[in-house]
Amino acid sequence: MVTFATYAGGMREAFHEQLDSIFSDLAEICQEVETSVRHATQALLAGDSQVAEQVIADDDKIDKARERVEDTAFSLLSLQQPVAGDLRVVVSALRMVSELERMGDLSVHVAKIARLRVPDIAVPEDARPTIARMGEVAEDMVRRVAAVLTDKDVEAAIEIGRDDEEMDQLRRTSFAQLLGDGWQHGVEAAVDIALLGRYYERIADHAVSVANRVVFVVTGQLPVTSEL
Amino acid sequence: MVTFATYAGGMREAFHEQLDSIFSDLAEICQEVETSVRHATQALLAGDSQVAEQVIADDDKIDKARERVEDTAFSLLSLQQPVAGDLRVVVSALRMVSELERMGDLSVHVAKIARLRVPDIAVPEDARPTIARMGEVAEDMVRRVAAVLTDKDVEAAIEIGRDDEEMDQLRRTSFAQLLGDGWQHGVEAAVDIALLGRYYERIADHAVSVANRVVFVVTGQLPVTSEL
Repeated sequence: MVTFATYAGGMREAFHEQLDSIFSDLAEICQEVETSVRHATQALLAGDSQVAEQVIADDDKIDKARERVEDTAFSLLSLQQPVAGDLRVVVSALRMVSELERMGDLSVHVAKIARLRVPDIAVPEDARPTIARMGEVAEDMVRRVAAVLTDKDVEAAIEIGRDDEEMDQLRRTSFAQLLGDGWQHGVEAAVDIALLGRYYERIADHAVSVANRVVFVVTGQLPVTSEL
Repeated sequence: MVTFATYAGGMREAFHEQLDSIFSDLAEICQEVETSVRHATQALLAGDSQVAEQVIADDDKIDKARERVEDTAFSLLSLQQPVAGDLRVVVSALRMVSELERMGDLSVHVAKIARLRVPDIAVPEDARPTIARMGEVAEDMVRRVAAVLTDKDVEAAIEIGRDDEEMDQLRRTSFAQLLGDGWQHGVEAAVDIALLGRYYERIADHAVSVANRVVFVVTGQLPVTSEL
């Protein structure tokens, strides 16, 4: 793990130690989000209400973990009074934890669509490859964000932004399918799939945003064309 | 307008003056969001591509205004080094401006659906009353959030949270309609309406969240069952 104490040239100041603890908490929350995304997709594609319920119930853990990170960040701001770059790093951490929590919420939305259609499967068989791939891409992006939070690897973080394009492409493919003449599965399945596409797309957007914030934290600059 | 300088018992400290300036900027951005929501709904219901384009183009102003608020907030944090409650107020302001920007983005999503269907109107006539009402409720909530940001009126802020229930009810009504046997408008219109419902619902969620943050800023406590 690359720590902020490392960046500080070996000075293990209280500030950098607390910052490292915040980032390791963020990485841990991100791993929980990855599990949520994976289980939500699994529940969706298998029509498994038990797994869906688990995703919904486990979201509480992510919410609680978020509160802990916020408390640590506020105490860091209050007690250490960071300025300039250090201040922006702590505020970035607060934003990242909000985004991770939101990604957890979006997994819950996926799980709820799964649960709503049990004993059926929300996604008709011929639409499944695209939705399954969306789930995989989202999960993969979240997994890599967790690694980026641990390793502070700027190149890997920038790479996540590039892979978001596959998600956009999948969403276009999915729309083309359900709005095409060959669609035989009616309105309900189409609406489910449109909303699922939206949820996965938002998970991917947040993943890119968190990755970009890591780039900012390490380099002091955001990747081109992204916003803090 | 109720100012933070007022709360400080007339002491016009630099901190409270800057805080007042942030909150008046937030109120102004919120008014721009209200305009975006209103115009987006108008573009949607009239199939007016010119108004839709305007909403899309004007979003840049909201993004720029957000950057200005962030810069002021960071300079406040750096130079004034607030602790405890004051610190939380400034961080809340940073969160509010993110949410306002997001509400602007969601209006752009509505406008893009409008634009996509021109010269047609995305929403079929019998679905229009529900969608029109969603647009009204969203616009009304955003307008009241702008007033709450100016007046710091806790009661009015809490009221906004209560009115979010109408939005949830409208979303249920809309789903029931497009998934019902009487739906004659095919998949495309149903998908548009499902996504529009999602966008309006999110605008309303963010409005409630910003209102709750104002309650927190004024009272130091969030309304029951809401989260910061």
